[in-house]
Amino acid sequence: MAATGILRDGPIGFIGLGLMGAPMCRNLQAAGARLVLYNRSAAKAKRLARKNDVVASTPRDVAEQAKIVILMLADTRAVQQTLFGRNGVSEGLRRGSLVVDMGTTDVLQTRQFGKWVAEAGASYVDAPVSGGEIGAKAGSLTIMAGGSRGAIAKARPIFAVLGDRFTHVGAVGAGQVAKAANQVIVGLTIGAVAEALGLAAAAGVDPAKVRTALEGGFAASRILEVHGERMIKGRFKPGGKAQTQRKDIAQALTLAKAANIDLPATKLNLRLYDQLIKQGGGELDHSALYKLFVKHRQ
Amino acid sequence: MAATGILRDGPIGFIGLGLMGAPMCRNLQAAGARLVLYNRSAAKAKRLARKNDVVASTPRDVAEQAKIVILMLADTRAVQQTLFGRNGVSEGLRRGSLVVDMGTTDVLQTRQFGKWVAEAGASYVDAPVSGGEIGAKAGSLTIMAGGSRGAIAKARPIFAVLGDRFTHVGAVGAGQVAKAANQVIVGLTIGAVAEALGLAAAAGVDPAKVRTALEGGFAASRILEVHGERMIKGRFKPGGKAQTQRKDIAQALTLAKAANIDLPATKLNLRLYDQLIKQGGGELDHSALYKLFVKHRQ
Repeated sequence: MAATGILRDGPIGFIGLGLMGAPMCRNLQAAGARLVLYNRSAAKAKRLARKNDVVASTPRDVAEQAKIVILMLADTRAVQQTLFGRNGVSEGLRRGSLVVDMGTTDVLQTRQFGKWVAEAGASYVDAPVSGGEIGAKAGSLTIMAGGSRGAIAKARPIFAVLGDRFTHVGAVGAGQVAKAANQVIVGLTIGAVAEALGLAAAAGVDPAKVRTALEGGFAASRILEVHGERMIKGRFKPGGKAQTQRKDIAQALTLAKAANIDLPATKLNLRLYDQLIKQGGGELDHSALYKLFVKHRQ
Repeated sequence: MAATGILRDGPIGFIGLGLMGAPMCRNLQAAGARLVLYNRSAAKAKRLARKNDVVASTPRDVAEQAKIVILMLADTRAVQQTLFGRNGVSEGLRRGSLVVDMGTTDVLQTRQFGKWVAEAGASYVDAPVSGGEIGAKAGSLTIMAGGSRGAIAKARPIFAVLGDRFTHVGAVGAGQVAKAANQVIVGLTIGAVAEALGLAAAAGVDPAKVRTALEGGFAASRILEVHGERMIKGRFKPGGKAQTQRKDIAQALTLAKAANIDLPATKLNLRLYDQLIKQGGGELDHSALYKLFVKHRQ
């Protein structure tokens, strides 16, 4: 495929080559981009690099060689360390550079990171994704972004390669707010389907039949479809891990506290995930919440 | 349209001609059925009757004139009274008759009604619906049914006129179990979307943009689509009333108690609906639950 727009203009920095980052890089390579790669364990970067790519020695090194730097890291602490730690991205940033955080990061800290990057004359976009490893591989991620119009416009050709659905939600941090809302709905809808199918089973009715009956109506959702099936089959290979879901809900509740809003159902959902994790279910798919509602009959 | 199968074979009894029942009858008439109509206030039956139809004086009268009797009543007490009260359906039932309850009725009592009807040599189907007044008018209801195969087979041509989606869930009562599961998911998903959009608004981000961003991913649902839009526009004309939703959740919790399963999120959801009703929101659409999460900024 011929590289167009920004993919042709210069190398793209990519930091964080895990389950999500690695397939995202492969899609950028396939679209013709040259990459400057960095990962804390360097072997992953070396394995991923093709002949036009560069393996950088530090995040600073990435920022010195690429005017766009994408982050796909595990948590907020890793983002902070990579951007502002020793040999971090901020030490190599140039005027007009662009930092794009595509992980799920705390909203208030994201706003702070955006300010600090702006003070260096660069710009910042938060662009968390939904769709998981499958979406990362297929280039079909849902991307929800926060940042200025100019910065978003620069990042759009990259988003077009990585995802098939994009929304500019608002200013820096707004993408992370949307992701928090997403995770609140996902956790609570899994809990809703778990209680409903658990009720059907406890009342002596086949939950698979109930799921089928509900699919056309107002109870229909992607969760009923995908995670409802996992519950019925008892197949809890992730997918999205329960402990990641738990972390994301906790992060949403931190935001809620700062925004002075009480979210009682979300709070309860966190306690239910805690219970699942305590029972050893943290590494299972988040739909394993269903186990809390069928355990007495297994 | 030419009447086929059961619609041609004999008159169909229909009891309960309210918001749902009246348009359902019109669809049966349009499909060529002759109806034996009964309503507690007789004016509605007279208004609805066409030249081939009969207006009955009691539920017993309906059962004497029609071998299939459909009920579309407000609650369990009305079903019990209509079936087994003085001049009730049971007094007029013949061997081989069929009673079809299409309302949302308590599961345990439905099983009891099924037994009593069977003792009279007739059969019983519970076939509650999802889709509301709009679905009743359009003949596009989702129908979830419980009963024997033979009884369901007799009712199928009628369901084909009234709805566009049908599932035989299991034995008598299984349709009501599915409806309870449906209402649990609907109530909890409304709560999920309300907390998520409330969080976005409290964090200073446009909830309309957040809803758009979420539509393609795992947070996608009919509730996000339909009720999420009502929340954003602040338009709470029902649709489904908050107090009906409250009643249905309470009924699901009664079933849960009998089935010895604890549903903590459903219990919390009931308390939230109580709070909304206490604030005067009982007649609003059930999506008005959102008001609990934005009131401090209005």
